Amino acid sequence: MADTRKETDSMGEIAVPANHYWGAQTQRSIQNFPIGVARFKWSSPVISALGILKKAAAQANADLGELPGDIADLIARAADEVIAGKRDDEFPLVVFQTGSGTQSNMNANEVISNRAIELAGGEMGSKKPVHPNDHVNRGQSSNDTFPTAMHIAVARELQAKLFPSVGKLRDTLASKSEQYASLVKTGRTHLQDATPITLGQEIGGWVAQLEFALDAVQANLPGIYDLAIGGTAVGTGLNAHPQFGEAAARRIGEITGLPFRSAENKFFALSAHDALASLSGALRTLAGALMKMANDVRWLASGPRCGIGELLIPENEPGSSIMPGKVNPTQCEAMTMVCVQVYGNDAAVAFAASQGNFQLNVYKPVMVHNVLESIQLISDACLAFNDHCAVGIEPNIEIIEGNLEKNLMLVTALNRHIGYDKAAAIAKKAHKEKTTLRAAALALGYLSDEQYEAWIKPIDMTHPS
Amino acid sequence: MADTRKETDSMGEIAVPANHYWGAQTQRSIQNFPIGVARFKWSSPVISALGILKKAAAQANADLGELPGDIADLIARAADEVIAGKRDDEFPLVVFQTGSGTQSNMNANEVISNRAIELAGGEMGSKKPVHPNDHVNRGQSSNDTFPTAMHIAVARELQAKLFPSVGKLRDTLASKSEQYASLVKTGRTHLQDATPITLGQEIGGWVAQLEFALDAVQANLPGIYDLAIGGTAVGTGLNAHPQFGEAAARRIGEITGLPFRSAENKFFALSAHDALASLSGALRTLAGALMKMANDVRWLASGPRCGIGELLIPENEPGSSIMPGKVNPTQCEAMTMVCVQVYGNDAAVAFAASQGNFQLNVYKPVMVHNVLESIQLISDACLAFNDHCAVGIEPNIEIIEGNLEKNLMLVTALNRHIGYDKAAAIAKKAHKEKTTLRAAALALGYLSDEQYEAWIKPIDMTHPS
Amino acid sequence: MADTRKETDSMGEIAVPANHYWGAQTQRSIQNFPIGVARFKWSSPVISALGILKKAAAQANADLGELPGDIADLIARAADEVIAGKRDDEFPLVVFQTGSGTQSNMNANEVISNRAIELAGGEMGSKKPVHPNDHVNRGQSSNDTFPTAMHIAVARELQAKLFPSVGKLRDTLASKSEQYASLVKTGRTHLQDATPITLGQEIGGWVAQLEFALDAVQANLPGIYDLAIGGTAVGTGLNAHPQFGEAAARRIGEITGLPFRSAENKFFALSAHDALASLSGALRTLAGALMKMANDVRWLASGPRCGIGELLIPENEPGSSIMPGKVNPTQCEAMTMVCVQVYGNDAAVAFAASQGNFQLNVYKPVMVHNVLESIQLISDACLAFNDHCAVGIEPNIEIIEGNLEKNLMLVTALNRHIGYDKAAAIAKKAHKEKTTLRAAALALGYLSDEQYEAWIKPIDMTHPS
Amino acid sequence: MADTRKETDSMGEIAVPANHYWGAQTQRSIQNFPIGVARFKWSSPVISALGILKKAAAQANADLGELPGDIADLIARAADEVIAGKRDDEFPLVVFQTGSGTQSNMNANEVISNRAIELAGGEMGSKKPVHPNDHVNRGQSSNDTFPTAMHIAVARELQAKLFPSVGKLRDTLASKSEQYASLVKTGRTHLQDATPITLGQEIGGWVAQLEFALDAVQANLPGIYDLAIGGTAVGTGLNAHPQFGEAAARRIGEITGLPFRSAENKFFALSAHDALASLSGALRTLAGALMKMANDVRWLASGPRCGIGELLIPENEPGSSIMPGKVNPTQCEAMTMVCVQVYGNDAAVAFAASQGNFQLNVYKPVMVHNVLESIQLISDACLAFNDHCAVGIEPNIEIIEGNLEKNLMLVTALNRHIGYDKAAAIAKKAHKEKTTLRAAALALGYLSDEQYEAWIKPIDMTHPS
Repeated sequence: MADTRKETDSMGEIAVPANHYWGAQTQRSIQNFPIGVARFKWSSPVISALGILKKAAAQANADLGELPGDIADLIARAADEVIAGKRDDEFPLVVFQTGSGTQSNMNANEVISNRAIELAGGEMGSKKPVHPNDHVNRGQSSNDTFPTAMHIAVARELQAKLFPSVGKLRDTLASKSEQYASLVKTGRTHLQDATPITLGQEIGGWVAQLEFALDAVQANLPGIYDLAIGGTAVGTGLNAHPQFGEAAARRIGEITGLPFRSAENKFFALSAHDALASLSGALRTLAGALMKMANDVRWLASGPRCGIGELLIPENEPGSSIMPGKVNPTQCEAMTMVCVQVYGNDAAVAFAASQGNFQLNVYKPVMVHNVLESIQLISDACLAFNDHCAVGIEPNIEIIEGNLEKNLMLVTALNRHIGYDKAAAIAKKAHKEKTTLRAAALALGYLSDEQYEAWIKPIDMTHPS
Repeated sequence: MADTRKETDSMGEIAVPANHYWGAQTQRSIQNFPIGVARFKWSSPVISALGILKKAAAQANADLGELPGDIADLIARAADEVIAGKRDDEFPLVVFQTGSGTQSNMNANEVISNRAIELAGGEMGSKKPVHPNDHVNRGQSSNDTFPTAMHIAVARELQAKLFPSVGKLRDTLASKSEQYASLVKTGRTHLQDATPITLGQEIGGWVAQLEFALDAVQANLPGIYDLAIGGTAVGTGLNAHPQFGEAAARRIGEITGLPFRSAENKFFALSAHDALASLSGALRTLAGALMKMANDVRWLASGPRCGIGELLIPENEPGSSIMPGKVNPTQCEAMTMVCVQVYGNDAAVAFAASQGNFQLNVYKPVMVHNVLESIQLISDACLAFNDHCAVGIEPNIEIIEGNLEKNLMLVTALNRHIGYDKAAAIAKKAHKEKTTLRAAALALGYLSDEQYEAWIKPIDMTHPS
Repeated sequence: MADTRKETDSMGEIAVPANHYWGAQTQRSIQNFPIGVARFKWSSPVISALGILKKAAAQANADLGELPGDIADLIARAADEVIAGKRDDEFPLVVFQTGSGTQSNMNANEVISNRAIELAGGEMGSKKPVHPNDHVNRGQSSNDTFPTAMHIAVARELQAKLFPSVGKLRDTLASKSEQYASLVKTGRTHLQDATPITLGQEIGGWVAQLEFALDAVQANLPGIYDLAIGGTAVGTGLNAHPQFGEAAARRIGEITGLPFRSAENKFFALSAHDALASLSGALRTLAGALMKMANDVRWLASGPRCGIGELLIPENEPGSSIMPGKVNPTQCEAMTMVCVQVYGNDAAVAFAASQGNFQLNVYKPVMVHNVLESIQLISDACLAFNDHCAVGIEPNIEIIEGNLEKNLMLVTALNRHIGYDKAAAIAKKAHKEKTTLRAAALALGYLSDEQYEAWIKPIDMTHPS
Repeated sequence: MADTRKETDSMGEIAVPANHYWGAQTQRSIQNFPIGVARFKWSSPVISALGILKKAAAQANADLGELPGDIADLIARAADEVIAGKRDDEFPLVVFQTGSGTQSNMNANEVISNRAIELAGGEMGSKKPVHPNDHVNRGQSSNDTFPTAMHIAVARELQAKLFPSVGKLRDTLASKSEQYASLVKTGRTHLQDATPITLGQEIGGWVAQLEFALDAVQANLPGIYDLAIGGTAVGTGLNAHPQFGEAAARRIGEITGLPFRSAENKFFALSAHDALASLSGALRTLAGALMKMANDVRWLASGPRCGIGELLIPENEPGSSIMPGKVNPTQCEAMTMVCVQVYGNDAAVAFAASQGNFQLNVYKPVMVHNVLESIQLISDACLAFNDHCAVGIEPNIEIIEGNLEKNLMLVTALNRHIGYDKAAAIAKKAHKEKTTLRAAALALGYLSDEQYEAWIKPIDMTHPS
């Protein structure tokens, strides 16, 4: 740290790198929290959200006469750079800091005030004409700004990443489901051969799961659109203009194009983050659905010769460093690992959600970190899975037909005609004697060849309307 | 097992106790699955739900001409006894059995058919005139009946237990919140003294959390009202009348008074139980909220002399077997233990939800068991907490006022008048010198006594409108 | 409650059922904690452990001159009945009570003192000649007795149930592993065909997992043998004879035959239950191993015609209420549901373990409940799985041989002779043209028929020594 | 990607950046798995471990005559650069890839072979004179190399980071415990005032927890020292020299100075990673202990005026952006967030551990990632907590003495003299009348002033020997 300048806060002076905008409190946090630095610095969604919040707060304060227009403008201009990602290097702090995110809130205040000071031709660190607390943080507390930024970041990531990417995979699968609506194959329950379904029906089950989970995520949006801003330190709104929460939420809505609003109960909004915990649960549901789908795909594609082998999936890379010619369901593996990670992230979020005390839950950073990571991972994995696996899924017709033909559970269609007990006897005989259902049925004399022909029609068994 | 009779299934004969209605498959399950017998037999909500399902199925089959009216009536009469809880002793099976619940479905089929046979004057075990598979299970498979019973049981328990009991606690707290709307006290963030709030606001935060969580549970009802019935073995509905699913769901709705409906995608309804997993996540959110509330209560009631001591809670029992006169926050402890259990149950449910394969998820019993247990525990704990703690919560005025008076964070009200930095200096001086804010403020010369009087008004700091 | 008698505690009088031994505090707990009553009463391991503890404490106090010999004898006689399970009905309390287990400690004190009074010809409720606190609880506090009973119960259950039952399953599998040591079959990685292994090796992998997990459980015994007794209320041992902890532990060791000892640090022993949490983690590891094994078994037994089908497992019951003749891997399903439950229980235990405050962790009951339940479930499931599945596992030779013969990964043996790239080309050609490896190899001219014969020997590939 | 060269693998040609050493398979993985790229690239412990493994493998192969000495030397020289961290930029792959880590194993093979080729003056991509598969990967498969690297990385991180950092914190606390061995203060159970302890005893409880947890982590080292190397593709060791596993383990031991050894059962070593899952459980136990300690610290330091306030902790930064002069327990907050994250990571690891199939668990990358992250976070957090909080913890004597004096639970010392019931009456009277114990005792006439003086000595109550 060759060149430094002096910055001050209520604890006194501290040297900060001259080539950075951050101030005293950011610098202290760097020094006090060297925890997971390589992986846990805030990602751009959080940084942008802080920028959006600070711009909106300045505008709202100006709207309400709490801040001179020129100061608000300077703040907005500096904040715009933060929003645009131009100042990401000015946010060196990590997740594991103060549990209220205070230091990241101050990081934003310091960077924006110093950059605004620079824009105004002032001296960085002088806090003039733009003070990090009295102007940039005006009418705010970390306790309401940080959870507000959390919600902004999460909502934007859901809209920008999760919904499009999961939606793309769902669309691909829905189209495959339609394409193979009449391709009859063996159904399986308990991993055992069961009555027939169509491949379209099988894939359609995955689609329905994804749609259910997407709906569950969507159902959490209203809670995410509720913003803590306006509650300040403990939820009472002390030191903020009475209309500040609503004004700021409106401005945030304008900037983001999303229907944010001021939360009805600010005490709740500071002391608990149940909307995030609930969303995390929905992401877990989505991960569970993706896991089931990915597992089905790889089992159906297992083989090529000693497995089920009913599906063909794209061969994207050599599968083994020792077994030549092996091709593995690698996209399924990446996907299921992502699902496992999302489950773990969710466990952390839910644990944290239970640990609030009095007017504050001090697990804010770890909660938003895990939710954002889950969103990112699911989004990325769905795109990769879609592009490198789902679009290329094809039935292995030969195997599907062979399996269907020998499936003893076709006998189920006879229940209605000869009763469960006789049908069971046929299946057991065929199984024991390794013969066909038809042969066993005729040998037992329970039906005629014509009846067999008429009653055992796999395609009819899949759409018994 | 002194007296027995012979019962048969597709695997042959087996002796069952003569004084019980169950048949061969139930008996086999008793013998094959002696796992957790003391605790894991099905509780009455599941047994009743199986009764409701079987009655509705018989009626629906009769409606559709699939079953003679007299057979359907016999089944309905026998099922009514199951619904009413008169046959609970006939359901000896445990959670840890076939993962589809097949054996419990057959248990219901066997008990109802044998009781119906008895009502008809027939011979138990003869399967005449009411056959367990061909009549009681008509148009059904365990794969669709058991998840249907799961949803029936869960929906009824939510309505009968969870909503009323949690609602009762919320009402009690809401009334306390109103009662103490103007009682000013010290707010706390990071466990440290913060700016004032009213006790009503503090309690109101808990109320808002409970309401959010109840809404989240409610939001899961549509998924629970979707029934698998009609899907039979793999989701295609093979062997069921095409209208059977809708007819049965309608009948179930009539019996229960709840808006059940036939699920749109039966493949989803058999192969995944994401509605249960999602509900479990909502119950976890509720548990997290209850944990925060119960923790706040016991911390605020900590003492009596060396803790925070701002709340008084009922003294229900001696607190210690060695420390005479000790009274402990036992209802809080029971509640938080319940919350921890609900988190554990939820982890099991979510894990199970991810493990489906192909056309079936074979973790049905363990999923519904844990969801029902969570519902029961939360309901019981909320009632106990309400009756033995919440209704008796009272402020310890003397301590609340003493704490408020010495709270240094009242200084925050000065930010708007003299700026953050000078306000900080006052607080630090008072802290260091163990004096009052007023004394420190005057000593520093940052404001006059009159200004102090005018600016530092705790009640104003709680409603800064 | 027709007949009652009066019992008193420090809060005054209360009516208790005349036909029960319990006293005032037990009665208050029944009334204050109606939570999960149907499932969550203490099971006999905990009740016996309380009996053992109280007997040992009385003996130790007598040894140290803290209790007259005749009083100690009366207590020991009454406690013996509790140990033997004759007084289980006198323990009506549930898990969700005071977090220290105080009420169950008092339940033991009350039952034992009243029964001792009865044995001495005194009047129940009179507390003479045997006082529940001053005599039965002499030198004790719930804070040290309850965790002591927790450890006694857990250690005995591990010894009596878990080690024998898991050991039995391991032995069965080890014997199968030996039996099939030379049966060559297709290995599988990524669910895809891989180089050959023997069935003995495959099963041996499961055995090694079970042994590792059993070792991990065993490694937790020292922590479980450490007893809190002697710490009394906060760990200092106030009101207990200085040698009481050691004397009581020695007596507990005599009664149980297990090497219990007085914990070195009693503050740790009361304020944290990390030995239980650690044990729970080991049980989870065991559950994970059982899950992998059970999944392998059911996948290898999948079919009978459209799956892998290399193993045959016992047919214990009809598999489907609709599909006649279907047989399912039900023991695997029960086992994997147990594993999922153990994971959930463990999550609850670990959560609870983190929540201690100051001198006490008040999640004692929920922790021991879940650990004991996991032990019970694993034990029961291993026995059921052993008896009804593992002992009957047999290879389906025909399928195993067929699969092996067509497995393209036999090509791996050529790496050392012709290099990875050429070997890969052979496998790819055979796969693409649906031909044999031999044909592809010869067609490519990479080796001669004699070389193929010499180099591709599946059995050699499994023991390449 | 301006300049590229051609690299080939068994799937054909692909362009890779000319300025990088990696080859075809690495390049394919970059393109196929753009998942979590910003956070989930392998960290240096994994990269170094791959380098160590490849060097050791080359040496072992040379030792056994499987590789010419000059080739082995070239590999070792290139690997040394990887070990030293000079080639970190050549490892662009992420966690979410093939579940066997195949692509990262190939990444190491490719980088090392190309660098070795360069050292030998050859042409990158030519695979001459050092072939990535036939030489660098000689006698290896990803299935045994990647888990070997996992264990190497984890063992080294435990030794280099976790043990020293947690040990440092333990030492600091142990020294504080000794320092305050005689400082008597109020004990607390159920958050309520309890009998006295010394501050040294209180801190000693934390020390004992840390020591227990460190022992639990240590107990997992033998499992971590067991290496999969030598198992190759499925555990049989096909294509490896029979002594290769042992030789490689010995070489790894030489390079690392740690007692690595060849795992006894290679089938277990590939198909399950229970040693990692078990270790993760131990890390969770450690996190639970740290959470309890950090929570105690912040509660004891709560205030400054309206909390417990018995401890003073360092003031490292301004606590609030709105409340001037506020100082928060930020190190405690960072620590407890880390603990929550470790719990979440552990949940992911345990889930993954249960999901192996047949000869391979394909969740290797996500397992090692989470274990390493937990190690890193705990290590970093313990250092930060030690340096910025623990070393500066001091008692607030004035508050400690004031609390002790008024603590009603001192009455417990009277049990032995006047019995539990009378002692309880004294405490209740004092509590009700807000008077002292002494006054209440005398008023009730249960003892004389001299007796009170003799019997109620707080320091004696903490060491009642």
